[in-house]
Amino acid sequence: MADILPLSPASPARTDGAAALRAQFAQPLKAVDALIAQRLHSPVATIPEIGAHVIRAGGKRLRPLLTLASAALCAPKSPPPVQLAAAVELLHTATLLHDDVVDASDLRRGLPSARARWGNAASVLVGDFLLGQAFKLMVESAKPAALPVLANAAAVIAEGEVMQLLTVGKVDVNEDAYLRVISAKTAELFAAAARAGSISADAPPNAQDALAAYGRNLGIAFQLSDDALDYDRHAHLGKNWGDDFREGKMTLPLILAYHRGDAKERRFWHNAIVRPRKTSASLARAESLVLRHRALADTRARAAHYAAIAQDALRLFPPSTGRAELMRLADFSAARRH
Amino acid sequence: MADILPLSPASPARTDGAAALRAQFAQPLKAVDALIAQRLHSPVATIPEIGAHVIRAGGKRLRPLLTLASAALCAPKSPPPVQLAAAVELLHTATLLHDDVVDASDLRRGLPSARARWGNAASVLVGDFLLGQAFKLMVESAKPAALPVLANAAAVIAEGEVMQLLTVGKVDVNEDAYLRVISAKTAELFAAAARAGSISADAPPNAQDALAAYGRNLGIAFQLSDDALDYDRHAHLGKNWGDDFREGKMTLPLILAYHRGDAKERRFWHNAIVRPRKTSASLARAESLVLRHRALADTRARAAHYAAIAQDALRLFPPSTGRAELMRLADFSAARRH
Repeated sequence: MADILPLSPASPARTDGAAALRAQFAQPLKAVDALIAQRLHSPVATIPEIGAHVIRAGGKRLRPLLTLASAALCAPKSPPPVQLAAAVELLHTATLLHDDVVDASDLRRGLPSARARWGNAASVLVGDFLLGQAFKLMVESAKPAALPVLANAAAVIAEGEVMQLLTVGKVDVNEDAYLRVISAKTAELFAAAARAGSISADAPPNAQDALAAYGRNLGIAFQLSDDALDYDRHAHLGKNWGDDFREGKMTLPLILAYHRGDAKERRFWHNAIVRPRKTSASLARAESLVLRHRALADTRARAAHYAAIAQDALRLFPPSTGRAELMRLADFSAARRH
Repeated sequence: MADILPLSPASPARTDGAAALRAQFAQPLKAVDALIAQRLHSPVATIPEIGAHVIRAGGKRLRPLLTLASAALCAPKSPPPVQLAAAVELLHTATLLHDDVVDASDLRRGLPSARARWGNAASVLVGDFLLGQAFKLMVESAKPAALPVLANAAAVIAEGEVMQLLTVGKVDVNEDAYLRVISAKTAELFAAAARAGSISADAPPNAQDALAAYGRNLGIAFQLSDDALDYDRHAHLGKNWGDDFREGKMTLPLILAYHRGDAKERRFWHNAIVRPRKTSASLARAESLVLRHRALADTRARAAHYAAIAQDALRLFPPSTGRAELMRLADFSAARRH
């Protein structure tokens, strides 16, 4: 297994809002990474190669961290739910592999995507393998109540992705529809990750609901913040500025700028999204329109709104270090600058 | 839901070896189809459309039938495991959707494939949705012991598909390696379907193992028989003759003919498999080589060998109508003529 470890080299350049939380859960996260590495093993060498590549590119381990931190908040002395946390990350990783195929993306976080290196077919199949391994881990976790939560998340994520697929090239998609897409494709797994952690701690239903609400709103804040970053040329680190625009993705900054724009601007957006090739000149125009209509600032304001809902959900729990860390994570998610 | 039912119209032209068994389990199979139709439901209309299309094209319901018949053999009076059987069929359907993307196939059983009609992206995502729904059904089935069996099958199938992907264009792949591929990609789900049925009937471990062995060997016989059919121009109904050859798939008739051929013949096979376009002239040559080297007859002889192993596994059970039907299914699987 030595050839595919370490999965997640600590890098000062990649410090983010989850760093403190990650330091706190360094031991169980290490166990999560080791378990993932073990489950990537296959006599078919392409599987651990692609698996390690995409796990490494996946980065922040935010979702397994949510599972671990939610469990610790509910039952600080229980053993950490390492298997469930690993299952959550494998599920996430499988969706990344399939996403790149669906979007025909050749880069992920500045690195060649798996589909660029190994092709679509292998990416689809290794994604399926990781889904299978994720379900195996869930089953082995001996927390049957977590199973329907994660199985349901898998179906809902796919549903959200199909919804998003149907909006490709539709420049007049509205914010409400977009929020439904990201609630399904991004936030559902955050919600499921947090709920699974609370279930592993045998938390009562209201605590489970609180953590699921925290996860869901954190996920929306995280995604909106990510959308804003993509149009913020001063903020990107590793990730290429303007990727979403170049790929014709309808994200919130563009949706707001389109709705607030005049007929001429809408023609620009329409051409930019419907036509395949965008030049750097049109990216500069997109940026200036997004800035003029306060679409970047307002996307971040929306993110802050969901982060605040996430934080209020946590107030069901008495104050503790764990709660404070999760509060801070919500702040960071809404205010990401890289 | 009326718009996507009936899923499986009875058609005299599609009668096959499983017909008697299917008649015997007509009621629970109807319940399986209804449950599948229910689980294809989504507010995102593309999902039930694609789902119904591929479920309909999937055809024979052999795998859920195995689950139902295995359960009935072990506990004739227990309620049929409709949820598990539906989960097995959904899992199978998800792999069909992904297979067509991986193979870039535009036809499935003579109909346009989902990827030909809706594109690769939607096929990948709807496949993921069906996988999620399959896992949900497994979890709801309240037979926790069946979960690791089916979750493991999902991972092994994907592993088998990756193995097969790595052999594409490799004309000298040997029979042993090929049998490993089909054991994983085809036979594992047959084994898991049968084992899950026996688990639902609370069968003892030796009965579970017997049915898993039956399923696995039946699956190999079924696949080899399918391989032979593809080179048998007198036998195909609905399915186009020579598809495997045109797609450059290394199946057993070709593997045997290649190994038994001389240098000149091997050059022909090499060109035919490595070069993309095969004419009807080269298909005729392929057919004549396959026939000359008895590769078709021997592929069928190999299928009969695995069918015999499947039948012997069943002899653990006392004679019964159910056992006799499964015995007959093995015979039919090895001797398919359409």
